[in-house]
Amino acid sequence: MPPIATPPHPLRDVRALVFDVFGTLVDWRTSIARQAKQALAPLGIEADWLAFADAWRAQYQPAMARVREGALPYRKLDDLHRLNLDAVLTAWGLAHRVDEATREHLNRAWHRLDAWPDVAAGLHALRPRVLLAPCSNGHIALMVHLARHNGWVWDAILGAELARDYKPKPGVYRAAVEALDLPPQAVMMVAAHSDDLAAAAQVGLRTAFVARPDEHGPGRGERRAAVPVDVEVSSLPELAERLGPADSP
Amino acid sequence: MPPIATPPHPLRDVRALVFDVFGTLVDWRTSIARQAKQALAPLGIEADWLAFADAWRAQYQPAMARVREGALPYRKLDDLHRLNLDAVLTAWGLAHRVDEATREHLNRAWHRLDAWPDVAAGLHALRPRVLLAPCSNGHIALMVHLARHNGWVWDAILGAELARDYKPKPGVYRAAVEALDLPPQAVMMVAAHSDDLAAAAQVGLRTAFVARPDEHGPGRGERRAAVPVDVEVSSLPELAERLGPADSP
Repeated sequence: MPPIATPPHPLRDVRALVFDVFGTLVDWRTSIARQAKQALAPLGIEADWLAFADAWRAQYQPAMARVREGALPYRKLDDLHRLNLDAVLTAWGLAHRVDEATREHLNRAWHRLDAWPDVAAGLHALRPRVLLAPCSNGHIALMVHLARHNGWVWDAILGAELARDYKPKPGVYRAAVEALDLPPQAVMMVAAHSDDLAAAAQVGLRTAFVARPDEHGPGRGERRAAVPVDVEVSSLPELAERLGPADSP
Repeated sequence: MPPIATPPHPLRDVRALVFDVFGTLVDWRTSIARQAKQALAPLGIEADWLAFADAWRAQYQPAMARVREGALPYRKLDDLHRLNLDAVLTAWGLAHRVDEATREHLNRAWHRLDAWPDVAAGLHALRPRVLLAPCSNGHIALMVHLARHNGWVWDAILGAELARDYKPKPGVYRAAVEALDLPPQAVMMVAAHSDDLAAAAQVGLRTAFVARPDEHGPGRGERRAAVPVDVEVSSLPELAERLGPADSP
């Protein structure tokens, strides 16, 4: 149990931020839609590409659920994304029109997602203040490629592959905290999703909600945290301001 | 078995470099000697501080051997360093003169080791060419702190903690290669130690020997690789030159 008395500056002791990535740092929806069009339109396929992105993403939680529940052993997100892509192509009647090489290339679109416009500046502003690491369900290679694609600098890559399980299982947050050798209250989970933050708080982490109101289309993302959080912002530079300066990371 | 025909440019396909850290990137000996003096001299202790550093380091391989052989479960290097420090203080007749807080602070000296002078510039030159990650027996937090201390930028932190075992066990190199999602021959191990490189080559990695002739004192480091390696250099900028430019990381 946390102490009853609230410390005067609850954010002062935060030494590391760990980030959700899909939706929180990158705009997966328009990035996937654009890349799906680039990959599939040359094959003569016409589609509502945003709906295609939504359909692919809709398979994401059910696929991970099978791992979380122990029905499948842990596997990298690339493998789940590929199973999901094949399922969507079949459901959309496109299975016979998309060859293996195109599928493999399109599956890697998740390694080439574009960041929301505030992210690079926000991470840059946060870096002198705290350690920074993704705590994503994406695997290490995917995180490495997204960082290079968007010019991010991480201190480490934490998340699902380290824990060999998927958020919101508590072991994923716990593995991140242990890897950083910090007490949970010195680590803040940053996410645009209330369920992610609620699960992190259960493990003792601080929480920051970043609103990404357009994640699922204009106005169709979470606008406000649906659970209690330590700080709620609309961008990463705003989060840097709220955290304020500190002695050293 | 590798193919019999040697490819024309064996280094062209290298996409990632993974680095040994203690000895290869940082000068642990003089860094530990200096910090031991800073921590212990105020307690009235006089010693040959370089010999103290050597004595502490001499416990390193035997301590890890117990983990490699399965006699101890994996534990972070901080814990082994601390056991070793206590053993050295006892052996040197200093156990009763060094309090717990001093021991804890001194044990963290391994998080504050200074790099060899060429390392920052070398990593900077290599970064546009390849992915860069430590593959050290140090744990993630230690690697994160060394990177911040020396201004390094890594793509990921790989090594012992990911594999939960210590080099030169093959699983440590294999875990690094798998985390990067690359074939072993696209990953090059960089080290100042022939045994590390020999073990990496066994797993299929490319190898680069960097001479650190002063690691154990002036002229008392490995000057030349004692095993076949793909490239042998005397600094990281020289390695960047030898690797040459590439399409993209």
